[in-house]
Formats: sequence, C-alpha cells, structure tokens
Amino acid sequence: MSGRRIGVWFVGAYGQVATTAAAGAVALARGLAPGTGLVTSGEPFDALNLAEPGDLVFGGAEVARGRWDHAAQSIANRGGAIPRDMAAAVSDALAGMDADVTDGVSFGCGEAVETRAERSVRFDSACAARERIESDLARFRDRRRLDDLVVVNVASTEAMPDEEESASWGADPDRLEAAASKPEGPRIPASVLYAWAAMRAGCPYVNFTPSTGSSLPALQAVALGRGVPHMGQDGKTGETLLKTVLAPMFLHRRLRVLSWEGHNILGNGDGEVLVHPEHARAKLRNKDEVLRSILRDPGMHSRVRIDYVPSLGDWKTAWDFIHFEGFLGTRMSLQFTWQGCDSALAAPLVLDLVRLAQLAHHRGEKGLMPHLACFFKSPLGGTEHDFSRQMGMLLNYAASTPQAAPLAQPRRQRAATP
Amino acid sequence: MSGRRIGVWFVGAYGQVATTAAAGAVALARGLAPGTGLVTSGEPFDALNLAEPGDLVFGGAEVARGRWDHAAQSIANRGGAIPRDMAAAVSDALAGMDADVTDGVSFGCGEAVETRAERSVRFDSACAARERIESDLARFRDRRRLDDLVVVNVASTEAMPDEEESASWGADPDRLEAAASKPEGPRIPASVLYAWAAMRAGCPYVNFTPSTGSSLPALQAVALGRGVPHMGQDGKTGETLLKTVLAPMFLHRRLRVLSWEGHNILGNGDGEVLVHPEHARAKLRNKDEVLRSILRDPGMHSRVRIDYVPSLGDWKTAWDFIHFEGFLGTRMSLQFTWQGCDSALAAPLVLDLVRLAQLAHHRGEKGLMPHLACFFKSPLGGTEHDFSRQMGMLLNYAASTPQAAPLAQPRRQRAATP
Amino acid sequence: MSGRRIGVWFVGAYGQVATTAAAGAVALARGLAPGTGLVTSGEPFDALNLAEPGDLVFGGAEVARGRWDHAAQSIANRGGAIPRDMAAAVSDALAGMDADVTDGVSFGCGEAVETRAERSVRFDSACAARERIESDLARFRDRRRLDDLVVVNVASTEAMPDEEESASWGADPDRLEAAASKPEGPRIPASVLYAWAAMRAGCPYVNFTPSTGSSLPALQAVALGRGVPHMGQDGKTGETLLKTVLAPMFLHRRLRVLSWEGHNILGNGDGEVLVHPEHARAKLRNKDEVLRSILRDPGMHSRVRIDYVPSLGDWKTAWDFIHFEGFLGTRMSLQFTWQGCDSALAAPLVLDLVRLAQLAHHRGEKGLMPHLACFFKSPLGGTEHDFSRQMGMLLNYAASTPQAAPLAQPRRQRAATP
Amino acid sequence: MSGRRIGVWFVGAYGQVATTAAAGAVALARGLAPGTGLVTSGEPFDALNLAEPGDLVFGGAEVARGRWDHAAQSIANRGGAIPRDMAAAVSDALAGMDADVTDGVSFGCGEAVETRAERSVRFDSACAARERIESDLARFRDRRRLDDLVVVNVASTEAMPDEEESASWGADPDRLEAAASKPEGPRIPASVLYAWAAMRAGCPYVNFTPSTGSSLPALQAVALGRGVPHMGQDGKTGETLLKTVLAPMFLHRRLRVLSWEGHNILGNGDGEVLVHPEHARAKLRNKDEVLRSILRDPGMHSRVRIDYVPSLGDWKTAWDFIHFEGFLGTRMSLQFTWQGCDSALAAPLVLDLVRLAQLAHHRGEKGLMPHLACFFKSPLGGTEHDFSRQMGMLLNYAASTPQAAPLAQPRRQRAATP
Repeated sequence: MSGRRIGVWFVGAYGQVATTAAAGAVALARGLAPGTGLVTSGEPFDALNLAEPGDLVFGGAEVARGRWDHAAQSIANRGGAIPRDMAAAVSDALAGMDADVTDGVSFGCGEAVETRAERSVRFDSACAARERIESDLARFRDRRRLDDLVVVNVASTEAMPDEEESASWGADPDRLEAAASKPEGPRIPASVLYAWAAMRAGCPYVNFTPSTGSSLPALQAVALGRGVPHMGQDGKTGETLLKTVLAPMFLHRRLRVLSWEGHNILGNGDGEVLVHPEHARAKLRNKDEVLRSILRDPGMHSRVRIDYVPSLGDWKTAWDFIHFEGFLGTRMSLQFTWQGCDSALAAPLVLDLVRLAQLAHHRGEKGLMPHLACFFKSPLGGTEHDFSRQMGMLLNYAASTPQAAPLAQPRRQRAATP
Repeated sequence: MSGRRIGVWFVGAYGQVATTAAAGAVALARGLAPGTGLVTSGEPFDALNLAEPGDLVFGGAEVARGRWDHAAQSIANRGGAIPRDMAAAVSDALAGMDADVTDGVSFGCGEAVETRAERSVRFDSACAARERIESDLARFRDRRRLDDLVVVNVASTEAMPDEEESASWGADPDRLEAAASKPEGPRIPASVLYAWAAMRAGCPYVNFTPSTGSSLPALQAVALGRGVPHMGQDGKTGETLLKTVLAPMFLHRRLRVLSWEGHNILGNGDGEVLVHPEHARAKLRNKDEVLRSILRDPGMHSRVRIDYVPSLGDWKTAWDFIHFEGFLGTRMSLQFTWQGCDSALAAPLVLDLVRLAQLAHHRGEKGLMPHLACFFKSPLGGTEHDFSRQMGMLLNYAASTPQAAPLAQPRRQRAATP
Repeated sequence: MSGRRIGVWFVGAYGQVATTAAAGAVALARGLAPGTGLVTSGEPFDALNLAEPGDLVFGGAEVARGRWDHAAQSIANRGGAIPRDMAAAVSDALAGMDADVTDGVSFGCGEAVETRAERSVRFDSACAARERIESDLARFRDRRRLDDLVVVNVASTEAMPDEEESASWGADPDRLEAAASKPEGPRIPASVLYAWAAMRAGCPYVNFTPSTGSSLPALQAVALGRGVPHMGQDGKTGETLLKTVLAPMFLHRRLRVLSWEGHNILGNGDGEVLVHPEHARAKLRNKDEVLRSILRDPGMHSRVRIDYVPSLGDWKTAWDFIHFEGFLGTRMSLQFTWQGCDSALAAPLVLDLVRLAQLAHHRGEKGLMPHLACFFKSPLGGTEHDFSRQMGMLLNYAASTPQAAPLAQPRRQRAATP
Repeated sequence: MSGRRIGVWFVGAYGQVATTAAAGAVALARGLAPGTGLVTSGEPFDALNLAEPGDLVFGGAEVARGRWDHAAQSIANRGGAIPRDMAAAVSDALAGMDADVTDGVSFGCGEAVETRAERSVRFDSACAARERIESDLARFRDRRRLDDLVVVNVASTEAMPDEEESASWGADPDRLEAAASKPEGPRIPASVLYAWAAMRAGCPYVNFTPSTGSSLPALQAVALGRGVPHMGQDGKTGETLLKTVLAPMFLHRRLRVLSWEGHNILGNGDGEVLVHPEHARAKLRNKDEVLRSILRDPGMHSRVRIDYVPSLGDWKTAWDFIHFEGFLGTRMSLQFTWQGCDSALAAPLVLDLVRLAQLAHHRGEKGLMPHLACFFKSPLGGTEHDFSRQMGMLLNYAASTPQAAPLAQPRRQRAATP
C-alpha cells in the first residue's frame, strides 16, 4: 500500500467481473493470491508506481438487489473464479463496501436489461439521470476521501442504439446536451450517461463492455475538454484474444484464411443477455471485425456464434475452426477449443485498466489512451488489432514514462475541480 | 524473370520438401499457382528485387535413386501438396533437372539414414567427402552458368553426434580440418560437410533441418572468413510455429502455463526416421526449447511426442493441450488440433530462404542472418523465439535495405572466387 | 451380376448422393473399388442373395439441368467422394444413363428449391403431378425391362409443410385423393407425390431426406393396400449417427447429460438450402430428437446448429460438446470433431437401402420396414434410436430370413400389376 | 438400509478410487448425493434387492500411511470427485473406518510400488503373506459381524510378472501352492495373493486393476472349488469405454479404421506409477486389445500413450484420433477429447461391482461372472468387448434373475465356512 486512496466505481457492481475484481483486489492486498493474470504485475510495470491492490476503494451502481459478499459466495458456489476459502476470507471487506453501491440507471439499456432491473431509478430526462450519477460519484469521493476515482463499465451489454439516430445526437457535446435535456428526447443509453457523468466529474473512464459508453464523438470531445483520459471498448479476454494472436500468423505466412468459424457457448448472465439478438449484435460485430481488420481479405468467410448453455455457469467454451489455403492451393485447418472462466480472465484486466487509467490521469493525459488497445476487442480510435503489436505499444508506453509525479501532489484537489 | 540465374542445391533432392519446392517454383514461374504461403510474396518484399521463381535453377545431392518427376507424381498420388494436374504440367521441367542431381554423401548420418541410402558414395575421410561436394557444386555452377548458388539442407534428420565429441572437433576451423583429414577420424556428419563445402565454394547455406549443419563454431568462423551468409536451423512450419505465436500471449497476459503437451502424428518419411530415438532427439529438443525460452518458467511441465502413423501420408496432425492458471488460481485450458501438409508448409519457406540468402550474399553480408529467425525452430545465434518479434526483425530488415546493387554487377565472378 | 435387373429411381438424380451412389455402383461392378462403407457387404448379408451392384439400373427425376458424368466430374474436382481417376473410368456408363433422367416435380418444395429449379414441370393439381411421375416410372421400367424398381428420395430438403394442414389432408387415402384432385387444393409437397406415385406403381420407396415423403398416415395406408414396402426418413450418416452411438453409453452408465451442443459446418448444396430456416427445421428437429428419445431427461439442454461454410465443399465438420455429471455431482465433458464427406457416407447407405428394400419386396413384405431403422435419423413407426439396438434388429432380420425365392419367379410381372 | 451388513475390503484402501467409493457410499446413505454414475441405480436393477449404500461396511489393506478422512479431504483439495462440503460432512464416518485398515502386502508388486510402501509387511514366503491376508479378512468379518464380504483390488498397477514364469506356477492350484510355500520361490505378485486369500476365505473377489489378480488358471480353479464368484480385470472408465462404444459403429458401417491413436494425459498417482514402462505395459495392452478384438483388421495401426502431467491432478484428458476410410476410398477422421475425473468414474463402478458380486454370491453362483464384462477393459473368460452387447448381457442377467433368496437366510454362516 502506497497510502493513496484510489476509488473504483463499477457500473454493474454485483456482476461477476466487478465482484471478482473487488474480491481479488482484497485477496491480493492480503497476500492470499499472487498476481497471476494481471498484465501489470512484474516488469516493466513495477517501475511505474501504479496503484497497489490495497490502495483501491470499491463502490458502484447496480440495478439488481444484492450484497457483495453474497455475490462472491455465489461465484464460488458455481465454480467460478473465486475459490470458496477465499470468498470466506474476504467477505468482511466485501460486506463493508455495500454502503458505496447505489441504485443503477438502466435508462435506454434495452428490454433484456431493463426487465431484470430491481433497483434502478427512473428519470424524466437523460440529463436528470446523468446528474444523479455525478452526485453519486461526488458523494463516493468525499465519503471515502479518494485521491482519484476511476469509473469502469462492466454492466450487461446494452441493446445497440439505432446507429443513425445516435450519429445525430452523439455528434458533438451541444447536440448531446440538447437531446439529453428534453423530457421526450431520444433514448440515450445508460452507458453513455455514465461515461458522460464520469468525465464531468473529472474521473477517468473505462468501458469494458460492447455498449456505446464513451465511443461517440460528443464524449470524445467532452473528455478532452474536461481533461480526463478514457478508453474502450469490449474487453478482449478469450476467443477474440486468440483471434488477434493467431490471425497475424496467417497473414505473415501468407496462408490464406478461407473460413474462420467461431462457436462460443457460455452459461452466465452475460450469455443470457446475449440470446437477445439486439444485445448480441455489438459483441458479434466486434468479435468478427478483428479478423477482417487483420486479414484484409474480402473473400474470407467468417461467422461468430454465441449460445447460452446454462450448465456451463461462469465458464465459456469456444471452438474455432480455421480453414486455410497454403502453397499450391493445399487446404489445411486449425481448430482450437478454449475453456476459460470469463470472470477470471476479465477481472485482472479491469484492475490493470484501473491502474493504467489512474496513471494516465496522474500524468495529465487526456482523451483516448491508445496504448491500452491490447485490452479491447474494439479499441477506440485505432485500427491496430494485432495483439503482439498492441502489446508493443503498451510496453513502449511503460518504457517511455516520465518520472512519476511526487506523491505529495494533492490529487484529490485536481480531481475535484473538473 | 529477371535474367539472373540463381542455383538452388538441395541436400536431399528427391525428398518431399525439395520436390515440392522445385515443382512449385516451376508452377509459379508458369503462372499455374499464386504465391500463397510464400512469406516474401507481396509487400514489403516486392521492393527488394529478390530472385523470381523463374530465375531459379535446381540441382542437388541424393542418397536414394529416383527421378524428380516421379517424386512429384508420388506426392500427388499420396494426396500431398502437389495436385495431380500440376505434377503433370511441370513434369517436363522436372525431368530436365535430374542431370544436376548427384550421388549424396551419407557419411556420419546414423543408421536409419545410411541403411536407406541407395546411391551414396563412401569416402576414406571427411575431407575427401567434402572435396567431392565442392566439386559437385562447382560443376553445377559452371554447367548452368549460375550467377549465384544457394545450398539448402532438406535431407532426413541425422542422428545427433555426441555433443562432447563434436564440441572438440567443431570448436574452430583448424581442429575441424585436422579431424576431417584423418582417415580414422571422428564421424563428422554429412550435414556439416555439406555446410563446410558450401562455404568453401562461396555459396550461401541454409539448414532447414535439425541436423548439425553450420551450427558449430568452426563453421561460423569459416563463413565469416569466406564471406558467405548462412542460417539455420530446423524449419518452423506447424506445431512449433503455433507455440511461438501462442506462448507470448500467455506471457504477456501473465497467465501461468502449468503444462504444455504436444502430440504430433505424421505419416511421411520424416516420421519414419523420427521413430529412431537418436534422430528424434534434436527435433524434440528444438520443439520444446522454444516454450522454455519464451515462458521462462522452470516449473512448467512440457512434453513433445512425435509418432509415425502411416495412413496420414504427407499430412501431420498435431494436438496440443495447454493447461494454465489465471487470476486467483483459476485453472483453464486451451487445446488445438493442427492438420497440415508438411511439404506444403515447408516448401515455400525454402524458396523464401533461398531468395533472402541470395539477397544477403548479393549485398555482401556474411555470417549469420539473424533477421531470418522467424523461419526456424532453433535460430542460430539468437534467443528470440517470439514469432511476432522475429517477424518484426524481418520486416525491419526489409524496410532498411539499401538500394539493391545494379544487376549489371557480375555476380558470377564473385561467387566463383571464394 | 445375378442376371436380375433392378431399377433405382432417384428423386434428385444429379445431386451428390445420387451421383456418388450411381458412380460408385458402376465402380463396384467393374471391380474399381471395394465394398467399404456398404453395411450389406460381407456377412451375414452375403447369404441373402441381395441385388449386386451390376444388377442396378439407374434413372430418376431432376429439377436442375445437367449430365451425370459432369456431376461426377464436378464432385471429383471439389475433392468429394469420387476420385478423379474413377470419375473418368465410369463416365461412359454414367453418360448412358441420362436418357433415363426426366424433368422433376418441385410442386410444394418451398422457395429455396423452387427458385433453383431449371427444368421442373408445373402442374394444375397435385394429382396431375403424381400421374406424371407414375408414367415416368412405368416408362423406365418398360424401357429397361426391369425386374423391380426402387424409388429413393435424395432431393434437397423441402420446406416443412404446415403440420396442422398436412395432418388434415394426410390423414387417410381418401382425404389425400380429394385434396390432390382440386386445382386450388393445398400444396402437397413433391416428396409426398413421389412416394405416392411409387406406391401406386408398385415400387418400394425409401426416403433418405427429412422431407415428408411417405410419413403421413395416408401413405402408410396406401403402401399396405398396394403391397409395397417403404421406409424413411432422413439418412443417419455422421453427427447424428455418433449421437445415437454415444448417448446410450451415458444412459447405461447413468451419467447425466446436462448439455449437448452440436455445431455442423458444411459447404455443399445441402448446406446452402439449409440456411433457409424453414428447410432446416425438419433436419434440426430430427438431429435433436434422437437425444431426447434416448436420454429421456427433460432437464437436458441441447442445441444443433448447421452453418454453411462454402470453402468446405462436400465436406462436413461437426463439433459436439457434451457436458455431463457423474458421481457426487462431478462435472465432466466429452467433445468430438467429425470430419466426413457427406456423399461418401450417404451413397453406400442408399445402395444398402435399395438392396434391402428390393429384398423385402421380393419376399412379399409390405408397409414399414422397421429393421431398417439403423439407416435413419427419424425411423418411421418406431422409437428405437440406439444405433446398437437398431443394428441388432437388422442382424436379426438377416439371420431369420427365409430361403430366398428362386430367381425364376417372374418379379417383373408382379411389379407391373400394382 | 436393508439390515444386511456387507463388508467391502479394498486392496489399496487410501487410494482415490477406494476413498471416493467409501466417502460416496456414506454420502449416498445419508442422502447427500443422488445415484448418478451408478449403473445399478434405477431399473431394472431396483428389483434385485441389491445391497444398499447404507449396508456397506468398509475396510481394507494399504501400504501407505494415512487416514481415510484426510484422503477424502486431499481429494477435495485437489479438485477431485469429492466436493469439500461433502468431505467434511462424511469425515466422521470415514474416521471410524481406519481401524479396519491393515498393513498392506506389497510382495512382488515391482519397484515403483514397493519403494513407495510405507507400512507394508514383509514375508518369508508367498504363503505366509496369503495367510496374513486371510486372517485380516476373518478378523474384519468377525469384528464387524458381516453377512458377506467382497474383496476389491483398487491398488496401484503392479509390474507385470514374467509371462512364461507365471504360466508355470499359475497353471493349477497345486503348482501355485508349491511355488508359494517355498521361501525362495518365484515372486508371486500381491494381487494374486489377495485374490487367493479372498477365495480361501469365501469372499467374492473383483479385480478393478490391470494387475494379475484372479486371472490365472490356478485361481479360476480355486474359485470354483471354494464356491465364490470373481471377476476382472481393469475397470473400463473413460477412453477405453469410448473405444468399445465407437469401434462397433465403424465395424457395422463397414468403415475401415486405418489408424486409431490414443493419447492420455493424467496427473494422479496412477499416472505416476504408469511412467514406469513395466507397470504401463498391462494397461496399454488392455486399452489397445479392445480395438483389435472388435475391429479384427490386422492392417489397422493403433497406439496408446499414457503420459503423466502433474497439473491435471485427479483429472484425465484423452485425445483420440481415428483415421478411417469409407466408400470409394474416401479418407475421413473422427477425433475426441475426453475430460474426466478418474475417481468419479471408477468409484461408482466399484460400488456396482460390490453389489452385483454380493448378489451372485448370495445366489450361489461361483467362478467367473461374464455378465459383468461391461465393467472391464479386459473381461476375464470372454472376448466380447462391444459395450452395447456387454450391457445387453448385464440387462439379460438382471431380467432373468430368480426370485432373490429371503433375507432370513444366514449369509454369514455360509460365508464363514469357506
């Protein structure tokens, strides 16, 4: 522990990713687990004076009723990423965090999310919802005397908004403000409101989901204006990670991919939401686009399926079949089966992103953080999908970092005056 | 065709890799096949003025009786990389090349190879064998009026020589010369004699096999002295390629690989030789070392099996099972099945290496060619196994290349005076 | 050759299954291929005096333009079940059969089939279409002086008719006759008309597809009345075969299947038709029902996907993931990847069915042939899906067969007077 | 509970299979788990009046120090078949059983087992060892007032004895007696001594391992003489079970298996012992022979590998690759990956065998129990390996069973006078 107090505000606090991240941070701080799975553990990141697990203070917003210790226990019971012993060993810390979980905003999230909402607040206008979020963030920061506060979206995937419509109200800050003020205005999705509120509150923002979040031009402008860094979108944890690792091999070896079929089966709430086609659309698009971006072959056939298989619980199995052509037209194939625990893969990346976003904020960086592309299926502002190159960008950033500012600098002040 | 005449001398001329490379080059030159599978087709290699398929003139040494057109036909019949139509369409060209295939030297190759040799010549001393190879190369160069000549080892894997013994006679050129001159001297393997002869004849040398080739300090010194570039060893075509693509992902994501089990089944002559443990040893070591080099975790368990399954013919199926640990100790797995045609994967790489070795020679480079590491399981002189980084080295080399020397420069002269 | 002349009338003559069966029968008769893949080759079937490949005379109906030798050549070129040499070696025989291929009836087949029809005849009423088929069969029988004639449906899968509607007009022969006579009557699918016509012409009938065929009560009554044997439906060739082999293991070992996910990718015309949901419905239902029938666990989750992947050509790859629970709640899994050539698997079964249907007819059996259940995904009239038990039924039938009637018995006469 | 007291004497009491079986029986008796994985749960076995889990009384012999509750806890901690809650819930019952675990006999077990033995007793002659076992069994029966006592071998696989030698001393009871009496006699393996002692003590005997056990003619004669039923050998739990389910499919469909390659990786003590080639030999032979027996094709290539991969703990992953030829020579493949928990698969079968062996004994059957073939890789006395047919034999036995003898019949008396 460095003495700093870095807040982490989860949109979707009782979900698996947030719960595993919070429980895991406590376990790491207490020496109950090593840093396996954390990209920023070890060299060259150790020299960056990143926030330590023990520096992190967790809170968030949630549309479902619950308790953090129960959520952790439930993950343990379903065979998820938190072992039972560990769930028990950190339950005291988790229980103390529920006071910082407020009712969520499910404004514009689509039917599958809204009908599951048990404790969300309804608002007359998008602006009213955004203001509520801003005041929640301010209260958390004050109550916990935080030096900085990072907002991370790990909520269920929203239905994609109509692209034409969002292109209109999301084009610039003024139009967004105007649209959000009208009581009968367009349905601006909650993920946009959270991102917007975070920026207005001077908080770095990370969108780990395929939802819209900070991706619209309007919010990119707000981030620059408010001086906050932000990044997204859609965490790259399993099958898509493999795609961005394997596809460059085919490209470099000039092996022509004829077909790349991906079939994902999973059993958690994420899977349940994704059976709704309008929620799956964004995710499927991101998972497929990485291939097209890397391989640049318009003749390639590809498809991604995501099916809900309840018995798998927190686990995902992905089978990918890659049919390719080599020298003299010889057709060959590669298939892989990935059996991963989604929250075990996602949670440490969320902690990495919190650490790196806080560092960027501390160093006065604002706007997009392209060096974090390696964490996302659909990195904002960039077209580099090759994982190895993305990783090179992160390592270069880490190597080129200026001397970290002295701890004495009053971070809270600056964060409090957005 | 650029008008240059670049010779390619295959050690193991009638083997699958050499035959597929020769037949493929003819097919490419005649427009019967696209450049799929050739790393050096397309950008940024197009700017390098590399030898064109039509520039290449093939010859070599072989211990088995045969004909190149029959070898191509046989590959086609077994479902290998050469389609039947293509085998027929290039048979005239292949038939014309047999005059440049001489009897091979199987000196020191180990029992599995020596007992299969039908037309190899026996010698009193290693020096006598080396001299014979030198004169074969000189005759090929003169007969075919070659501008340059690249020697490529694609013969069956030799038995590994005793390491202590080879460390003694392979330590420097003088000791090698002394050992080779003695009628009752140590068994210097044929791959070393071919590499040595190539260097003395001023020919760039590439070792695509796990055999010793040019890897000993003595020959590295000879290459510098004679001004020839060389590289090896053991072409990276399938399962090991995937290892060097996937292992960095686990490293960067700090996912701890507990076990990596690789099981290869294949049905060609390569597989038949590798059932002899002393021949398999070098290959298995190379396939396994890449993991240890990249992951640097002494606690990791790994094993590679290669089994001969006759019905698979020229095809190899590899199943790899990777057991790894993530956040909070969660254990997950990845398994893949690779179904590839070995000669279809190897042959274009051999053509790439010929092109790039000739370029290096043309540019006056000598000694190891570390920028070719991406082609080898066990790249000489370097420890970089991460395929993406190796590829970066090659692309940097291609980007930084000086203006190619004018074609008018009399390449033959220089090559003829080693 | 036994001297008999057994006609085989394919509905869908130029499709892959019919073409492979016809070309294969010629190849078998000429000694160009062994009986691999034919269930009825070898004991105990040798004693049954089944029709020999050389006894078979092929004809059929087709909605696409074409030629049988070209169809065989095209299968060879796409890497299907007929090797190129064999396609060439049997092309003379195939060319001679085109005279017995008539324009097909695509009445009621659904949009995906009807829009691809190039040479189908349109009719005012279903009865008119049926009569046309009857006269086609009679002409084939006379022209080729056949001793018996078996009709086999291997056409593309039709759209499923509305179940309520077909339950009405398909309930008994009178209602079927009434509905078929009306010019503006219900759309009775072509597969029903072919089955009906076959029965009226005294021909054994086999439905190798998921289309309705002879499954309605009306036609089951007609078959008994006309004294012809018939069977269906939906040939069991690959993934579903494995399901009916593996599911009994889980049942007998009391291992509880939690989820069984099947993902099929294929590239032939069959796959193209099945992307139309109304055509896929029947097939998916059959593929899934076998599991429910064998395992009888209403809590089991299962799903079947069929996706079209053009590069696979005649090949199908199926990946099945089976999640199951054992002692003390331990959860385990089995996954398999099946890589099969659909026409290579289906064609010999079609020849088996022709042989066994002709035998049943010869022996005076009529109505359903339950001993042929092992050949079908959805065997008519029975609920036994366990492949091993189905096979037991066939072997019992073969063992209990009466002495075959003397060849002298005038089969043609009887077949000609339905 | 039926009021009977049926003893189960495990050779290898603290091993995973015995521990999981004992803990599982307690859990079943207490209603903590359903009968999943038990072949004899449900119909038609319910009518047979088999011993209930609560009737079973456990004891055994063991060469390692330990406690049954610790062994169960250790399985739970390694992610084996016993959940942690269950291990805790049955620990009281397990603790009470240690008094019935005696020092094991490792006489003739081979180096890998003998060097791991911590509490085995050494004897001057095989007869002395056998007598010790007999008195252990008698003491257990008396102490626990057992109505019957079944001896089950679940110890680590012994080194295979020299076949020629064992053919000599194992040929008949007299030779066995003579050999066993000599202080310097041949090394008769412990598994033989346990089987012999069990028979002499009037106990049904089951050999769940590949060790010699009761397979020699001498012991088959003893069993008949002593009136006890026995069966073996080598429990069929995972990969081999699948082989005997899948191979008949290939046979019936006349698909010619060219190669069947099986690769097993596992991490438990069983795996550790099997790295010793002399211990693996028997297991590998059994796993391979089933294929040869079912497929009867001398040209088929097959191989089985078992590799020890520590990180897998109690879990086994098996990858099988089956290359086969169909109609017109088309080559296709099936591959499967089985991920099973060995003890979860084996333990319920052990309970099934105890129940069925006790029933047979109760009904006065003696000698081999061929109806139990479905439980074994290498069923004694029979050549039927097809799982479905084996299962048919068991179901026929269950259906044909005479009215079970009344419970009042004094089983203990009879068991006590062998």
